[in-house]
Amino acid sequence: MKGFVLEDINKAIWRDVPEPVAGPEDAIIKPVIVAPCTTDKHLIETMGMPHIQGKVLGHEMAGIVQEVGSNVKDFKKGDRVIVSSSNPNWKNPAAQMGLHKLDMINPYMVEDSRINGCFAELFFVPDADMNLAIIPDNITWEQAVILTDMGTTAFECVDLLDLYYGDTVLILGVGPVGLAAVRAAYLKGAGRIFVVGSRKVCFDVAKEYGATDFINYKEGNIVDQILKINGKPVDAVAICGGQRADIIVDALRVVKVGGKVTNCSVFYYDEELVLPMSAISYGFNDKQFRTVTCNAGRAILEKLLALVEYGRFQPEKMITQTFHGMDKIEEGLQLISTDPNTIKPVVFFD
Amino acid sequence: MKGFVLEDINKAIWRDVPEPVAGPEDAIIKPVIVAPCTTDKHLIETMGMPHIQGKVLGHEMAGIVQEVGSNVKDFKKGDRVIVSSSNPNWKNPAAQMGLHKLDMINPYMVEDSRINGCFAELFFVPDADMNLAIIPDNITWEQAVILTDMGTTAFECVDLLDLYYGDTVLILGVGPVGLAAVRAAYLKGAGRIFVVGSRKVCFDVAKEYGATDFINYKEGNIVDQILKINGKPVDAVAICGGQRADIIVDALRVVKVGGKVTNCSVFYYDEELVLPMSAISYGFNDKQFRTVTCNAGRAILEKLLALVEYGRFQPEKMITQTFHGMDKIEEGLQLISTDPNTIKPVVFFD
Amino acid sequence: MKGFVLEDINKAIWRDVPEPVAGPEDAIIKPVIVAPCTTDKHLIETMGMPHIQGKVLGHEMAGIVQEVGSNVKDFKKGDRVIVSSSNPNWKNPAAQMGLHKLDMINPYMVEDSRINGCFAELFFVPDADMNLAIIPDNITWEQAVILTDMGTTAFECVDLLDLYYGDTVLILGVGPVGLAAVRAAYLKGAGRIFVVGSRKVCFDVAKEYGATDFINYKEGNIVDQILKINGKPVDAVAICGGQRADIIVDALRVVKVGGKVTNCSVFYYDEELVLPMSAISYGFNDKQFRTVTCNAGRAILEKLLALVEYGRFQPEKMITQTFHGMDKIEEGLQLISTDPNTIKPVVFFD
Amino acid sequence: MKGFVLEDINKAIWRDVPEPVAGPEDAIIKPVIVAPCTTDKHLIETMGMPHIQGKVLGHEMAGIVQEVGSNVKDFKKGDRVIVSSSNPNWKNPAAQMGLHKLDMINPYMVEDSRINGCFAELFFVPDADMNLAIIPDNITWEQAVILTDMGTTAFECVDLLDLYYGDTVLILGVGPVGLAAVRAAYLKGAGRIFVVGSRKVCFDVAKEYGATDFINYKEGNIVDQILKINGKPVDAVAICGGQRADIIVDALRVVKVGGKVTNCSVFYYDEELVLPMSAISYGFNDKQFRTVTCNAGRAILEKLLALVEYGRFQPEKMITQTFHGMDKIEEGLQLISTDPNTIKPVVFFD
Repeated sequence: MKGFVLEDINKAIWRDVPEPVAGPEDAIIKPVIVAPCTTDKHLIETMGMPHIQGKVLGHEMAGIVQEVGSNVKDFKKGDRVIVSSSNPNWKNPAAQMGLHKLDMINPYMVEDSRINGCFAELFFVPDADMNLAIIPDNITWEQAVILTDMGTTAFECVDLLDLYYGDTVLILGVGPVGLAAVRAAYLKGAGRIFVVGSRKVCFDVAKEYGATDFINYKEGNIVDQILKINGKPVDAVAICGGQRADIIVDALRVVKVGGKVTNCSVFYYDEELVLPMSAISYGFNDKQFRTVTCNAGRAILEKLLALVEYGRFQPEKMITQTFHGMDKIEEGLQLISTDPNTIKPVVFFD
Repeated sequence: MKGFVLEDINKAIWRDVPEPVAGPEDAIIKPVIVAPCTTDKHLIETMGMPHIQGKVLGHEMAGIVQEVGSNVKDFKKGDRVIVSSSNPNWKNPAAQMGLHKLDMINPYMVEDSRINGCFAELFFVPDADMNLAIIPDNITWEQAVILTDMGTTAFECVDLLDLYYGDTVLILGVGPVGLAAVRAAYLKGAGRIFVVGSRKVCFDVAKEYGATDFINYKEGNIVDQILKINGKPVDAVAICGGQRADIIVDALRVVKVGGKVTNCSVFYYDEELVLPMSAISYGFNDKQFRTVTCNAGRAILEKLLALVEYGRFQPEKMITQTFHGMDKIEEGLQLISTDPNTIKPVVFFD
Repeated sequence: MKGFVLEDINKAIWRDVPEPVAGPEDAIIKPVIVAPCTTDKHLIETMGMPHIQGKVLGHEMAGIVQEVGSNVKDFKKGDRVIVSSSNPNWKNPAAQMGLHKLDMINPYMVEDSRINGCFAELFFVPDADMNLAIIPDNITWEQAVILTDMGTTAFECVDLLDLYYGDTVLILGVGPVGLAAVRAAYLKGAGRIFVVGSRKVCFDVAKEYGATDFINYKEGNIVDQILKINGKPVDAVAICGGQRADIIVDALRVVKVGGKVTNCSVFYYDEELVLPMSAISYGFNDKQFRTVTCNAGRAILEKLLALVEYGRFQPEKMITQTFHGMDKIEEGLQLISTDPNTIKPVVFFD
Repeated sequence: MKGFVLEDINKAIWRDVPEPVAGPEDAIIKPVIVAPCTTDKHLIETMGMPHIQGKVLGHEMAGIVQEVGSNVKDFKKGDRVIVSSSNPNWKNPAAQMGLHKLDMINPYMVEDSRINGCFAELFFVPDADMNLAIIPDNITWEQAVILTDMGTTAFECVDLLDLYYGDTVLILGVGPVGLAAVRAAYLKGAGRIFVVGSRKVCFDVAKEYGATDFINYKEGNIVDQILKINGKPVDAVAICGGQRADIIVDALRVVKVGGKVTNCSVFYYDEELVLPMSAISYGFNDKQFRTVTCNAGRAILEKLLALVEYGRFQPEKMITQTFHGMDKIEEGLQLISTDPNTIKPVVFFD
């Protein structure tokens, strides 16, 4: 079958790859729709993950079950399904303490050649009963595919802020993860929601999702801008974008004493964060910082699907282009980095 | 000044009462708008609280600061303000551990004659800097008055359910507290929201607030109806109405193993709950039940006001009648118990 | 092989049963030590669980791995191991949200004949990598066996109280679960620890574990006794014994407003709890009640083993008799119900 | 009266200062015992706080109530009391949301000349009913004084780690705060407890408090030493000492993915933390970091006193010298920085 393989830095090509084979717990999915992601772009440019070379790219997909292993109970051929961008290893005792995220079976971090990306004609999913989720009939393919990474990442990043009703929240970044985070904050009872970005197309969706204040980082220091408008520090900050680690310093400066900062950005380059002690009041102020990996697994996906099903979240609002034909994936990837009017393109395989 | 005083069972009358006097930490408020509450009805019918006799009734009010004590720093004459239906005693060490609700300075539970109801020309507020909250300019009197008891009670009752995104929630009762609870659940990320009631006028507002499924208790056992529609137990239940204690049994039966039930209904009569051990699986199923007093104090009020200010909650949707003239309070009280189309009446004093 | 089978009410006998067979994920354990439990007594007297008839009794065991399935990675023949009294079904999406306790593979609640009790020459453990835990060399068989049910139940029941340093805690019941709960409370920072019971042998161990106040229920109403000594309600209550459901009313009466009550007792008979609304202040006081199933699985067992390994908990203190020979199990069971000086007997198979 | 005043860098002298006057909510305490602290040393050397110049030093004290204001209800002349090293401003709405620590009335951070240190003949305490705590009869002066800062700081720092039974905990620093943190970890159910330091006198007390593994930072990189002994990262880390900010990097490296690091050290100099992104797995690992201010107020002090009263914590074990005469404070301060056998000296005024 055809797969979009990362051969070397800046060299991702379509070529033949072996068809996946399902073990007794596994499933093989035929992708119907995929979404290119900035992470794919970064990986192509840096190959910055241990086992990436020779792997198929792609981690956002919705599709149809093609085959299930003999022990799979809750899924069958023909089911419309989604799966998280990474699947936890549920057979890990750490998962019993809620630490399943620590052992993610990510195609680029494990050697296992069965664990591969979704930009291919068929896609292998381990432990299908624990990792797949049925797409309800009234949810579209476009809606579903957005949940697999943008949804699982942004909602987790905001969930861990432990917001209280009426809190003032800052979302740093208004790409697709930032936008989903705006909605996640709205759906956790945020009052005022600041977003920081620069592109009108993103601000427009942010507004529909519930953002109230729009800060353009090109118009001055963002900490100063926010403090001026808000009159005081914000209650909580989710970092959902930003290329440089020093965004963390801004976040710590603008959050209230006693407040939380979560981060779901990945810093691919081995840069150093230079954190002046003044940003944490010399160790004296109960500010909290945590990095956040996307949550994953069937239960979370079913919860996010329920949000869409009951009209709480309209993920399709962030889709700016819909392509047909798997060969259009490269065009989608290109748009992400070059077109200021692109938020999230999706590609139907047919 | 005139006050609406509870003299005896079923005998609440307008008569002269002494004007309140502010101590150094206190404030005197001139009510602009008040809302009659079913609690007022229950108190008139039962006098079921220790220090109710001879007290002025009423605990939902928004008004204008008339006078502040010499130590009050953040409020001044002319400010538009609200105050919770009860004020915690903030000078209690229990408040340092988050247990401020345990020592509520409720007019009907303390002897102190200064602590009185708000159905009077002037209203006394102790510890003004800790208990008052400024009404922002873009919030109306009608919106503000609903927050003082319906808001503080319902949002607390739902907050304590610790909902996760996409959870299926059941709100028992669709009076004004139940309706506010629907919105509180929506704003904590609930997916499916069941409500139980019988009146169309309430179901209509519930739908606008985010309810998805409407159960009429007159059409059969509510546990059976919900299990049939949902296909499985619900994730969480907030009891926001229901006259009889056995609503608690229904709630425990319909919630999932591992789920939470909170209750903010008051059971005025000394009835007994008969709880079959089967409802809690013979002690074996990690179901949780807690009673909930409304939260209170300036910080919470400011948070709820932020929800209204940023368009997250439209409390005015539940107002079905707007009266002018304080003498209309009795008519409002009457409507609550007799008119099936009444949800919440409010009364402007002028 | 021989197994101690519950044939009918009050008829548990030794007879031949089929040897268990390990599937690829499973293990077969040769029991070295077992502990009879009051639950065994109740089951013999009532047969009060759905699939008990014809099953081998017994759920507290430590032993040696005899055989593992082909997919088992972390255990091998000859390992000294323990396993929880019930094993969660880890292949359940609910486990992904921390609700693994809802789907316990308990021999008496599932039909599957492989899932059986441990009073037999060999014992079947499903999903061995997720359910077994290695006993460190410096932990004795006697210490280890106590953790499997007394440990997993009591520590969970106390953990869910969310104690703060210095809290005053009440443990209702001083049988082996109550005693382990005393230590669990001590190890969560309790200050004063009340226990309620009547037997000196138990009070003596409770004192060694950290109890400070000893209430004999034969000397008067326990609520009155505790309030008199403590001068105020207690911060938290764990119900770890007590035959009648009305112990729950006592617990709710003696806990502070805002406090928590957890219960890990099982109420086998379909009795009804009659809860006067006054015990929960007519729905008005933020008291919390939850039932608690024992926690289970490898991760929890490893945590409890660490407590023993580092000298925090000495489970062997509650062992009052040590028998040799599997035929002594009945004698142990007999002692539990008739001998006032018995806390916990254990039986070595050799 | 005499007070030990910080006049300038490295110039702290005894001189006459005005006697404090109690307002209606306040109390005047006559110190009986005080404890010099490394913070005093740092302040003398750096004057690194905004309003320190001309203020009396000292913030650890137990004493006798000399006078109370007219509104003080729960304390009277002659009571034996303690007070936290800083007192929160309880008249702040932030305190209603549990954020009282954000507005600490610390003598060195507020201009108000009444708010002063305790190295003086009399000591002013604002809001006495909320900030004082009675020392029970069976607690000594030496025990009590240790709780005021070492206790409130260390127990908060460990409490915020949210330990689970059996967790492996690392305490960085074995000065008096680190030692109290060891006990705090033991009393939250830690299994293995690593401490890092170098002095035998401290390791000995750490062992009595529950530490199990003793790492000398002079014998090599502490991360390497701990990983080698433990075989894997630790569950949680409390930073309770360490002069340089890069201790935070060590803590983040040695904690497990998904683990928490809390810090109660103060970094007085405006240094910069250089945090390589690799220490937080490029933003990808759910590690948490928070700075921690000591908790404070009457309720917390009463909880810590309960720990001592019921024998859970023996704070006197860390006292290495007991002086008599307030003029011995300087000698105590000297010992802290020069004597390797000093942990914590205390000074009785008589």
